[in-house]
Amino acid sequence: MIAGDRASRPGGRTARVRSDVLAAVESELAEHGYDGLTIGAVAARSGVHRTTLYRRWKTVAGLLVDLLEAGADDSWEPADTGSLEGDLIAVNREIHAALTTRPSITQAMIAASFRTTDAADALTRFWEDRYARTALVVSRAVARGEIPSDTDAHQVLLTATAPLYHQVILLRQPMSRDQADRHARIAAASVR
Amino acid sequence: MIAGDRASRPGGRTARVRSDVLAAVESELAEHGYDGLTIGAVAARSGVHRTTLYRRWKTVAGLLVDLLEAGADDSWEPADTGSLEGDLIAVNREIHAALTTRPSITQAMIAASFRTTDAADALTRFWEDRYARTALVVSRAVARGEIPSDTDAHQVLLTATAPLYHQVILLRQPMSRDQADRHARIAAASVR
Repeated sequence: MIAGDRASRPGGRTARVRSDVLAAVESELAEHGYDGLTIGAVAARSGVHRTTLYRRWKTVAGLLVDLLEAGADDSWEPADTGSLEGDLIAVNREIHAALTTRPSITQAMIAASFRTTDAADALTRFWEDRYARTALVVSRAVARGEIPSDTDAHQVLLTATAPLYHQVILLRQPMSRDQADRHARIAAASVR
Repeated sequence: MIAGDRASRPGGRTARVRSDVLAAVESELAEHGYDGLTIGAVAARSGVHRTTLYRRWKTVAGLLVDLLEAGADDSWEPADTGSLEGDLIAVNREIHAALTTRPSITQAMIAASFRTTDAADALTRFWEDRYARTALVVSRAVARGEIPSDTDAHQVLLTATAPLYHQVILLRQPMSRDQADRHARIAAASVR
């Protein structure tokens, strides 16, 4: 959910450099976490010169912000399973996968957001965009006549997704996929 | 919910020093946040010598860990309103107040937990203790015959409280007290 597919990005050398650099940031984050992320390591892995990195992205936080922004303009949308419950279960399974992959890029991003306001602002914008897109599961359910037309989409999405984030990120405890499914069901039932 | 009442702590000079120091940490955090918290400022505010602080608490993280541990052994328990829904609303209102007070000590603690593993471990232990105590709202409801005896207490508490933490801490958006009440109601309804 965090990182979009940049392979198909059009453009020439500049776009290719960005794509290589962001792929290197993602790999470094996944392997070493936020604390191990350095401009030098990104330069070595991407084959892009350190000077270029400093000129264009300035800091490690700048690289993270760009990684989030690249993720935000991809074509992600929630799976259409035919029911609100099924759609919310699918959403939670994506989040569950993103949070439980070890090491998790999502977790690294969240850690970064508590270090620099640039990363925090970028993460806020990113999540606003993702929750707005995910609201499609609610409008589809309204269109099917499954739930009332005045259903509060954000409330439903929070009910489904927040327990998973809270348990893993703030309480720092595991949550099984079954438990994540259960919170999706509670959210769907809350508006039926 | 984070900081217990240490005024009544028994003991002599050592206990008084700890009490003064932790009160100073709390005030400094509230005024300047985690980034503004220094041993020097805590020394100045508490009137306890810097050398004593370094000897006993070593670092700013050490002070935070002790603040959390002091909070954990207080006598907090959830309000008894006579119904699961009422109890969960009361719990969420306490969390809401702790998160929306500006500046929020809870928010500073969470930020600190993403900087040092000592603070993260201390926060994890603190929350485990608080969620275990809050499970009383579920066992009271079971004893009243309001909900089934095999109700998953942690699931109910997550359903009620996680949306509030997620919205304010990770999504960095406001949540009204009415919305917090609504999530408490959804949690109560999910097990009836």
